[in-house]
Amino acid sequence: MHDVAQRAGVSQTTVSLVLNDPDNCGIPPATQQRVHQAIRDVGYRRNRLARAMRLSRTDTLGFIADDLATTPYANQMIQGAQEAAWAAGKLLLIVNTGSVDDADHRDLERAAVDQLLERQVDGIVLAAMYHRIIEPPPAMSEVRSVLLDARSSDGSMASVVPDEHQAAYDATSHLIAAGHTRIAHITTDYPAPAPPPRRAGYLAALADHGLPVDDDLLVTNLGTTGGGRLAAAELLARPAPPTAVFCYNDQVAMGVYQVAGEAGVRIPDDLAVVGIDDQALIAGQLQPALTTMRLPHHEMGQWAVNWLLDDEREAIEHTIACPLVDRDSVRS
Amino acid sequence: MHDVAQRAGVSQTTVSLVLNDPDNCGIPPATQQRVHQAIRDVGYRRNRLARAMRLSRTDTLGFIADDLATTPYANQMIQGAQEAAWAAGKLLLIVNTGSVDDADHRDLERAAVDQLLERQVDGIVLAAMYHRIIEPPPAMSEVRSVLLDARSSDGSMASVVPDEHQAAYDATSHLIAAGHTRIAHITTDYPAPAPPPRRAGYLAALADHGLPVDDDLLVTNLGTTGGGRLAAAELLARPAPPTAVFCYNDQVAMGVYQVAGEAGVRIPDDLAVVGIDDQALIAGQLQPALTTMRLPHHEMGQWAVNWLLDDEREAIEHTIACPLVDRDSVRS
Repeated sequence: MHDVAQRAGVSQTTVSLVLNDPDNCGIPPATQQRVHQAIRDVGYRRNRLARAMRLSRTDTLGFIADDLATTPYANQMIQGAQEAAWAAGKLLLIVNTGSVDDADHRDLERAAVDQLLERQVDGIVLAAMYHRIIEPPPAMSEVRSVLLDARSSDGSMASVVPDEHQAAYDATSHLIAAGHTRIAHITTDYPAPAPPPRRAGYLAALADHGLPVDDDLLVTNLGTTGGGRLAAAELLARPAPPTAVFCYNDQVAMGVYQVAGEAGVRIPDDLAVVGIDDQALIAGQLQPALTTMRLPHHEMGQWAVNWLLDDEREAIEHTIACPLVDRDSVRS
Repeated sequence: MHDVAQRAGVSQTTVSLVLNDPDNCGIPPATQQRVHQAIRDVGYRRNRLARAMRLSRTDTLGFIADDLATTPYANQMIQGAQEAAWAAGKLLLIVNTGSVDDADHRDLERAAVDQLLERQVDGIVLAAMYHRIIEPPPAMSEVRSVLLDARSSDGSMASVVPDEHQAAYDATSHLIAAGHTRIAHITTDYPAPAPPPRRAGYLAALADHGLPVDDDLLVTNLGTTGGGRLAAAELLARPAPPTAVFCYNDQVAMGVYQVAGEAGVRIPDDLAVVGIDDQALIAGQLQPALTTMRLPHHEMGQWAVNWLLDDEREAIEHTIACPLVDRDSVRS
């Protein structure tokens, strides 16, 4: 600091003012520039620890994620959150708590919160790798906190999730607009928050367009490629098979593609297909490329951090719409 | 702290000793347990900032990643690194510097290093999203640093990358062991460190097993599903087509599957296929499931952090072997 001041021809107090509050320090811009040049010249680095002690603010946010390894979405959520944090001069301290199915997952989650609080983070994002209802560790309430792709069981904590109903409604409407009237839906009975609103969105779109519901066209299986294969085989064997299918997710759609390929059913000519997810490695690479509803992971990550950073905003349960990614699996 | 001491019936000094150096503080285990119980009872949290100032050690490590959003591997690297850090009582401060193709990528990388150094991280991991040669920002040398899935252009910095040659050698040998003698390789001329050793590993395996090299069976295209389709079409049109193909990566293999499916070429009966990557959403979901060499992203992440944490270890360029994941695309 002494060297910086000497080189810039100012006092150490001036250097300190420029670094700590450039907008309101009253130091002329030209002098500020000289200070910054001197800082670069001497390779001076601020010690944020001292600053953090003084301001009771570390400019770091905690990001707790379950089971990073099992999902391609984690990247997008982390990237969205990190970009919003970076834009505000904050960094993310990240902890991965492993599979939610592990017996010690709750303990790890609690320990993660403790570690972050001990490091005086300014806020915490708790991210789920798929839309879930969770019970946040009580200690999270000691600091401003938000749930990402998850909601709290009692609705008390701020949260952001995809608009599942809208995604399904728009996917189905897109198929109806393409002229289809026999539209199947492959759903799953996995106990998660997403399947019911997706099914409801599908039914609402049919109803709003005056189309009848055919129970033969609503099939339940696993939300995986294997589940998609079984469901597609069932649908194609119906006396009156569908001309379009809205799939629970892109993996299910991949299974539909495989069975259609084996049966000589051409996509999109004989069967139109829409998914939900927009998993780059599936949706963009299938032949033909898959039309799907993109889950807004990047935007959700940004929203969560921006909510944390705005002290004025009250806790709300926010949803973000899923845009249609129009590729080649629906003939227009 | 006062409340903890009172509740445990010990002095504040004792509480401090138990928290800061439990193994060498000389306080009996029973007393230590009483202190920890009191801590839980009163909800006391250590202030790591004060501790960090005192010890000149923050127990945080920086993790700089380029372009998280474009790769499913980031998760595995972050998870491996985070697990190793957590096991040593450290947390990761993560920064994403965006696409390496962006004009300002170098600036962002430098700014990320500055931010981490200002926060007094104990070390830095710089992670690339695919095996690259990079020029690390000079400021990284101010703290113990390591490259993950990347090497430094001058070889001066510690690094960990996959053993590309071994992966290709073992993939090709697996096809030879299954009885194949006409084995194609789809490679790419993308300017990265991986293609040459993968091609060399393929050629070495052929040579070691006394098989001739047929230039007709070595095809160069893009390392994508589209590139795989074009390369596969070329190979299947040869006067003497191959009975097996070792693909540059899983995406290329997906393209081979698509062309084989359209041409009525059955996998693995008419054509055996091996990839490199083990991208869960591709390799495990293709029909039949793809035999591939797994890139050891999780292990590389762990290695990088463990190297950082062991001050005694000198900078080395470390490689980690890629294990064969034997699924259904090679008939044994």
